[in-house]
Amino acid sequence: MSVTFAQGFSAAGVAAGISSVAGKKDLALVVNNGPLDAAAGVFTFNRFCAAPVQWSRKAVANGHVKAVILNSGGANACTGQAGYEQSKATAETVAALLGTEPGDIAVCSTGLIGELLPLDNVLAGAKAAYGQLSDTAEAGAVASRAIMTTDTKPKTVEVQGAGYRIGGMVKGSGMIAPQLATMLCVITTDAVVGAGQLQAALNAGVDTSFNRIDVDGCMSTNDTVLLLASGASGVEPDPDEFNALVHKACASLARQIIGDGEGASHDIRITVTGATSEGAALACARAVAASNLLKCAISGNDPNWGRIVSSLGTVPLDVAPYDSDKVTVDVNGVRICENGGAGRDRSEVDMTPREVHIDIDLNAGDAEATVWTDDLTHEYVHINADYES
Amino acid sequence: MSVTFAQGFSAAGVAAGISSVAGKKDLALVVNNGPLDAAAGVFTFNRFCAAPVQWSRKAVANGHVKAVILNSGGANACTGQAGYEQSKATAETVAALLGTEPGDIAVCSTGLIGELLPLDNVLAGAKAAYGQLSDTAEAGAVASRAIMTTDTKPKTVEVQGAGYRIGGMVKGSGMIAPQLATMLCVITTDAVVGAGQLQAALNAGVDTSFNRIDVDGCMSTNDTVLLLASGASGVEPDPDEFNALVHKACASLARQIIGDGEGASHDIRITVTGATSEGAALACARAVAASNLLKCAISGNDPNWGRIVSSLGTVPLDVAPYDSDKVTVDVNGVRICENGGAGRDRSEVDMTPREVHIDIDLNAGDAEATVWTDDLTHEYVHINADYES
Repeated sequence: MSVTFAQGFSAAGVAAGISSVAGKKDLALVVNNGPLDAAAGVFTFNRFCAAPVQWSRKAVANGHVKAVILNSGGANACTGQAGYEQSKATAETVAALLGTEPGDIAVCSTGLIGELLPLDNVLAGAKAAYGQLSDTAEAGAVASRAIMTTDTKPKTVEVQGAGYRIGGMVKGSGMIAPQLATMLCVITTDAVVGAGQLQAALNAGVDTSFNRIDVDGCMSTNDTVLLLASGASGVEPDPDEFNALVHKACASLARQIIGDGEGASHDIRITVTGATSEGAALACARAVAASNLLKCAISGNDPNWGRIVSSLGTVPLDVAPYDSDKVTVDVNGVRICENGGAGRDRSEVDMTPREVHIDIDLNAGDAEATVWTDDLTHEYVHINADYES
Repeated sequence: MSVTFAQGFSAAGVAAGISSVAGKKDLALVVNNGPLDAAAGVFTFNRFCAAPVQWSRKAVANGHVKAVILNSGGANACTGQAGYEQSKATAETVAALLGTEPGDIAVCSTGLIGELLPLDNVLAGAKAAYGQLSDTAEAGAVASRAIMTTDTKPKTVEVQGAGYRIGGMVKGSGMIAPQLATMLCVITTDAVVGAGQLQAALNAGVDTSFNRIDVDGCMSTNDTVLLLASGASGVEPDPDEFNALVHKACASLARQIIGDGEGASHDIRITVTGATSEGAALACARAVAASNLLKCAISGNDPNWGRIVSSLGTVPLDVAPYDSDKVTVDVNGVRICENGGAGRDRSEVDMTPREVHIDIDLNAGDAEATVWTDDLTHEYVHINADYES
């Protein structure tokens, strides 16, 4: 399903010979067949942003995108003017195939930083993908697999609105941290929505989904989230419902990234309540999510609350006012820290579920925030010590 | 040697039954026999600071400390009023043995957060240590071993000044990140120096040593660095030389922590030059030092410069102005990134030495900063998934 769940979109995925894994599908094409071609985008804040990000930022700026071409097997990041020319040539090839302008084509890349792409393969792959474009569920599924790198499974979403649909795909497993925290994501809708409304919905949706997950604290050079509207349903959605469904799609995809985080054996939900502001709650949750020591403990099935509060204690007072003597911490429903000290025995906590819930109450106010992260395992080290990405 | 290198200090280390490892020496006592008892201290910024930190902060505040008692096997952190009473009782016991006031005794603890100490064992251990006090090199060495936890070797320093001496010991291996980055450190000198000068020398020494190392990004609840002066040499040091030697002692101890970082197979020196300010250089160096992906790559002997610049790119423009197209990165002397893109081939880099030098030139100014970190290995995960600390 994925991006072809919404009407008006066709997709394809092919093996273009970009990836070092022979025969792996490594190039995806998503085409908006209209009647609308409204588009919105959110991109990495990394100052070493990749050539395709530089290109796509411009392509999306006028609110119109007719197609997105995405490749795994190479990030085309830190490749200078030559890299930019590669993204441009890729867009030009797709534009010629579709009979449109290069400025209407977004380009996304993921893989090793610092090397140019095998451009001939990319361009030949674009033509092959164009020849295989289809609006079937299978075509969407194939596209979602073609963008995978260290991902172990494709990640897609389908959301049904009142007379319209939203579909999407994402790749991302490591180098995941706000802002953003995704790598590459394309979300499609057949609702009748203009670019301004799309961008507002996407900004809000991303803020509490992709920007609230953190696999390893590392921000990518290539993060891109695109939201494309074809208008093919003919339905103008209720704005509140539409915003909520875009958020739902983003949240589902973000959750799937955490579920497939590199080497992860636990998905960890950290909720901070009782904060004086959402920003304070978020700062505390992010500090806990960033703790390598806690993430190791969880991989060892140890609900080590000392590593939770010692992380919490690194957040400056002016960022998050709270009294350390009033903090409580529950892990999987067991209050193992009470009034900043020991509560129930940690042996009472059942750590066997994949999902671990850490609930921290600062008892300082009414605001809250949630972030998701993964545990830190031997397998994460193995993947990232031995895989060049 | 360690703390007994300077005249006027005696030390001891005993097995008090605090550690879960039977027979491990886990309690150290360091006594300043004068004639001076000047003292300075630097403590963790963690808001969940441990009971002994709360106690010692007060003990040092008036500039006088006659003895320090340190234990491994338990941090006495997040233990509330009961924990504070334990630190107080420990100080009272030592004070009674020495015929002085409890407020002249500093207390340090390290180990698992969230549990009270076996106080009877601590107090009996204090008496046993008092009975074994000695100013020999061996006594100092024993004390430095009694404070170890996941450390694999004791860490000590001896610095000879013009007619006076500085000695020290430190423990620390994990949960090491600014500010501070040490766990427990006692430095002694027989120079004739007042508390104000001691504190200034310590602040400056710590700033570019313990505050520039980062094993795992995790800040401890118990970090304490104490500098004690006995005046036993009778020599009033040249202030500049004294400051330089205190820094030298701190830098040596900090470097030893990195050399014994949990599970580490490489010690990584990250130097950022060409910055617009020292703060900008430091922010960039710290961002690179915090990258789990880079630290994994280095453990796999991969000088992955993409992970260096992608970390650099997370530092906001207003914090560190630089142009990403002008950045160069050398790893072990090979310029593998030039003008923000690929330079010489990464295969030219010899990654076999334990020490890895990453030299980043922002080409934006004249300021620089250096931080040290460790690589991230399977063994780090093993230690922290299986060891409760």
